[in-house]
Amino acid sequence: MTDKQSFHDKVENAWQQTKTLLCVGLDPRLELLPAPFEKDRDSVLEFCKTIVDATSESACAYKPNHAFFAALGLEDELADLIEYIQNRYPDLPVILDAKRGDIDSTAEQYAVEAFERYQADAVTVNPFLGWDTVEPFLAWEKRGVFVLCRTSNEGSAWIQTQPDIDPVYEQIAERVDALNNPNVGLVVGATNLEELREIRDYAPETLLLVPGVGIQGAKAEDVLETGCADDGREVLINVSRGIIHQDESEDYLESVTTKVREYASQMMIDG
Amino acid sequence: MTDKQSFHDKVENAWQQTKTLLCVGLDPRLELLPAPFEKDRDSVLEFCKTIVDATSESACAYKPNHAFFAALGLEDELADLIEYIQNRYPDLPVILDAKRGDIDSTAEQYAVEAFERYQADAVTVNPFLGWDTVEPFLAWEKRGVFVLCRTSNEGSAWIQTQPDIDPVYEQIAERVDALNNPNVGLVVGATNLEELREIRDYAPETLLLVPGVGIQGAKAEDVLETGCADDGREVLINVSRGIIHQDESEDYLESVTTKVREYASQMMIDG
Repeated sequence: MTDKQSFHDKVENAWQQTKTLLCVGLDPRLELLPAPFEKDRDSVLEFCKTIVDATSESACAYKPNHAFFAALGLEDELADLIEYIQNRYPDLPVILDAKRGDIDSTAEQYAVEAFERYQADAVTVNPFLGWDTVEPFLAWEKRGVFVLCRTSNEGSAWIQTQPDIDPVYEQIAERVDALNNPNVGLVVGATNLEELREIRDYAPETLLLVPGVGIQGAKAEDVLETGCADDGREVLINVSRGIIHQDESEDYLESVTTKVREYASQMMIDG
Repeated sequence: MTDKQSFHDKVENAWQQTKTLLCVGLDPRLELLPAPFEKDRDSVLEFCKTIVDATSESACAYKPNHAFFAALGLEDELADLIEYIQNRYPDLPVILDAKRGDIDSTAEQYAVEAFERYQADAVTVNPFLGWDTVEPFLAWEKRGVFVLCRTSNEGSAWIQTQPDIDPVYEQIAERVDALNNPNVGLVVGATNLEELREIRDYAPETLLLVPGVGIQGAKAEDVLETGCADDGREVLINVSRGIIHQDESEDYLESVTTKVREYASQMMIDG
């Protein structure tokens, strides 16, 4: 990534070019790799590149998830994939979904991992250890950071929301809003629209990365209506499995292209 | 690791052999690598092996931190290091400090990363996404899991403690205690002894992994007095920088050996 452009500028430019809020998640599952790919680790990089090529006209960003590469020892291939996207589609930002969370010099190392080793444009960060976790990432001024705020799984409610106090997610949203830094966003699941609306109220202009549409059941139109800022943007809606893993009974790449166009068209923005 | 023995059995056996609660943290910092090592990434694995050999008679466990390897693209070397410890010192458990936190099939992948790709005996896990995060790790029945409970940095207080409700750390401690699974422990910083005492009350028999002694200022004797279970054990006290990075003015390995013996002797248990 050239550091002439900030992450948010890159996202805005991608919106201009693509007119969609769709971010394609790259979570390659071996057991779901379609023919002609072998279902083994040697196929993962090529599979992901094929998906990128098949979706690049309908996506405004990519989000590879570190876990699926790390489980197979494919860290070098993850770096190669990010480089491939950046060389071939330089207008499309890459968000590394790594959910790192540590403090002090350890957090600094994780920032180096995300921004130097992987050259990601942005990374997801877990704030459970406090703002100490987030700050070392902010030192990379032009890169982006998405702080986990309200995740889409029910099981996180006991820690992210609290019945008798200001919910933790509210505190996170307010704090990120107060940074007034367009490169710092929030991860907010689409599965609870009421909370998504609240978070948008606490952080009116903050960029939101929203999972939960597709397999997890939320609808794109609801996210557009509830999550967008006043400018009708400031949201990236991520879809992973719903696009990259299709029924193999039909032509695989054709299915991917159909699916990504369908999602992209549900997330159109005015130019 | 052979899976004939559970993580907790391995820890108990290590206590029997070594009579100390000292866990040595392996957080290799390039800029602090001593002569004759070059301060570059090619030295990291050999440096860590040297540290392990110099400390193996005074430590009951090792805790490599993923961040320091990942920043340099040294994931394969991290796997080699863990294999080296397990081959050469098969009685000493290896805890991978990775603080992973994700859900569903992504958390499953992180469990594969920790237990298959790295063959760690145990791993640290961040519960901010809820118990969904922890459960996929528990499926590896004989391996260990340490759930972050109360970290040693002040900056985490706003999220881990709450003035008007049961603190989050208390809820985490109670939940882990209720599992009644000796392989599942808690990470509790040593810097706030009052909270350490509370957590021990909530989880009377749970294994605690305690950072914060040494550079961060807490004292071993206080942790022993406050954190141990009724059997005088169930604590692993981690020291990283205080042991592995010494002043280079004197003989480096001699300093490491002196330091590790000093810490080990402050953390002696009856046997």
